[in-house]
Amino acid sequence: MEPGARGAAPGGVSVSAVLPAGGSGERLGGATPKQFCAVQGRPLVSYAVRAMERISWISDVIVVVSPEHIETMKTIIEKYGHKKVTVVEGGITRHRSIFNGLKVFAENEFSSHLLQKPEVVIIHDAVRPFVEEDIVSKVVMAAKEHGAAGAIRPLVSTVIASAADGCLDHSLERARYRASEMPQAFLFDIIYEAYQQCTDYDLDYGTECLHLALKYCKTNAKLVEGTADLWKVTYKRDLYAAESIIKENLSQEVCVITSVKETLAQVGFLLPESLKSQIKVEAISVSLSKNDSHLQNIISGQCYNFICVNDRRCAIQEVQELVGMLEKSNIPLLYPVVLISVHLDVSENNSFSIGMEDLTTIKKFARETKKKNILVYSLLIQYK
Amino acid sequence: MEPGARGAAPGGVSVSAVLPAGGSGERLGGATPKQFCAVQGRPLVSYAVRAMERISWISDVIVVVSPEHIETMKTIIEKYGHKKVTVVEGGITRHRSIFNGLKVFAENEFSSHLLQKPEVVIIHDAVRPFVEEDIVSKVVMAAKEHGAAGAIRPLVSTVIASAADGCLDHSLERARYRASEMPQAFLFDIIYEAYQQCTDYDLDYGTECLHLALKYCKTNAKLVEGTADLWKVTYKRDLYAAESIIKENLSQEVCVITSVKETLAQVGFLLPESLKSQIKVEAISVSLSKNDSHLQNIISGQCYNFICVNDRRCAIQEVQELVGMLEKSNIPLLYPVVLISVHLDVSENNSFSIGMEDLTTIKKFARETKKKNILVYSLLIQYK
Repeated sequence: MEPGARGAAPGGVSVSAVLPAGGSGERLGGATPKQFCAVQGRPLVSYAVRAMERISWISDVIVVVSPEHIETMKTIIEKYGHKKVTVVEGGITRHRSIFNGLKVFAENEFSSHLLQKPEVVIIHDAVRPFVEEDIVSKVVMAAKEHGAAGAIRPLVSTVIASAADGCLDHSLERARYRASEMPQAFLFDIIYEAYQQCTDYDLDYGTECLHLALKYCKTNAKLVEGTADLWKVTYKRDLYAAESIIKENLSQEVCVITSVKETLAQVGFLLPESLKSQIKVEAISVSLSKNDSHLQNIISGQCYNFICVNDRRCAIQEVQELVGMLEKSNIPLLYPVVLISVHLDVSENNSFSIGMEDLTTIKKFARETKKKNILVYSLLIQYK
Repeated sequence: MEPGARGAAPGGVSVSAVLPAGGSGERLGGATPKQFCAVQGRPLVSYAVRAMERISWISDVIVVVSPEHIETMKTIIEKYGHKKVTVVEGGITRHRSIFNGLKVFAENEFSSHLLQKPEVVIIHDAVRPFVEEDIVSKVVMAAKEHGAAGAIRPLVSTVIASAADGCLDHSLERARYRASEMPQAFLFDIIYEAYQQCTDYDLDYGTECLHLALKYCKTNAKLVEGTADLWKVTYKRDLYAAESIIKENLSQEVCVITSVKETLAQVGFLLPESLKSQIKVEAISVSLSKNDSHLQNIISGQCYNFICVNDRRCAIQEVQELVGMLEKSNIPLLYPVVLISVHLDVSENNSFSIGMEDLTTIKKFARETKKKNILVYSLLIQYK
């Protein structure tokens, strides 16, 4: 699905997202807050932002960062081509930061331009990079119905309460409890009301948005079972895990590029459909000669596999243009990029020899690009 | 510290350990239970066993596995040279498996040979590979004093209780609760009594040993704050994390090998002392010409860095013998092994030229071993 294009939100509501990213990352034990730690060369927060941006029906993504990281965040937005993001200055605690993020939709004086207030607002973490549209959609639907909703997971360890002497007081029956995770979603008016009502103690020591909605708006949030990939990057080991997962995902993602011509667009539709069951597919229709921002986004999103469906007559130029874009992206410096060029011969005359000539030229070109770590493969298909 | 040598236990008590390893690994989402998953080519359970074996004052390590994995476990013990392990057949739940493990110390008919009943028994998980002696020692000391003790960690997520309708009932104040982790330790008589008393319901549905000690023996376990590395491998991402941590540890571990000769042993003592602050050091005194099982253990423990302190006169033979052992271990197939050979010239006559000759021979030898991914460096030191 194309980011930027506004699809229909679940339940037809308008939706935006707030990502608190003001944490100091103490538990990680490094100088850089974890949301700004690079994983495969890209800061963690950029993955979370991308996950939200990719969902077509999310209008705005508010990233709340501490004052000293505003410039860092703006650089990240620029570098990775994020389009829906507004950066907001955070408060000294998580709740204060989220509140600041919400104010952008409600208080004129807080932002240079007041953003359109959404019916439902998603709250997600900058350090949960792997959220999928499915769970976000479920949480938004549940929030529309119940006023509040949040993803939960089974507890990994038994939870215990200690007495004042540091000894076991009691242990909780694991099956009765759940870990509260993100994303959460709220009717905007409910969570904003809760933040306006809540005490300084809540703002300074609280951690749970669902709790505020319950305490101040009597809203019992709907709990939605999430998948294991919702986990929060907390410790250094989680960065290792995130890196491995991202590497694994990269090799399982392919971008199918077709030109805007009718016959090609048809193939460009059928191919992703048949690939979908085996691999994550991004499909776009663009003219490669134009500097398309969505394609730039995908490349900077570190997709390493491309299938380029083109008209036989302009095959080489298109492949060369894509290779040029990939070279500029610096990705091939680190990882081999695979580019399969599918040349459709849609002409009526069976001039197979000309096709072969093209392929020979591409073969030469491929030998050159191989040195640059871009592996070009070429297919000629007679299509009638 | 040399595994096998029995140092003094904290508080002078006798200590053994039980490692339940009967889990099915459902949450991991693979066919192989996670404790048998290979991390850097070695099953996870072997890391946990090694962590226990390395602690000199732990006498026996009981690994409890499901009937179908007994042979697998025996193969692992053989392959990785584990010395203190007794394999016991597990029950259908975690508690039943731990109970079976404890019976080896108490019931004649359960084992072919009744093991010496320890005063304190440690219960640890086969899927927590990174436990350090420090926390084990603290938990054992606390168990000696309080009857029971367990490692705890702060909660990562807020814990919530859901109502029957799947909505939020209440959230727990995060600061008041802790995650119960491993290792735990108990006076043997207390935990054995608790298991004998407890109901079938406890055995089938319970998860928490500390709870049993409290419920059946009125023993409030002492809670000991553990380090972040105690976490349990639960999901696939945890395997990724474990792999990265093991890789990191490997490059930070060095084995100093000295021959048993007096002067050399002295250097072999001073060198590890001065290295200790920067890197994890295993120091052993062996004659390399003998096939030493402890050295074999270290090599199969995937240590990749060696400093071999030897007498100049037998320098080349010793280096060759060590290289031979390393080649057989298959480690250099995957990772570069670094071997620094320190030749001490302890003779009175200043026959430096002979030393140079030796070094030339070693240089040639090093060129050969480099092809096998073993990097040999050589130092000649005049020592008087």
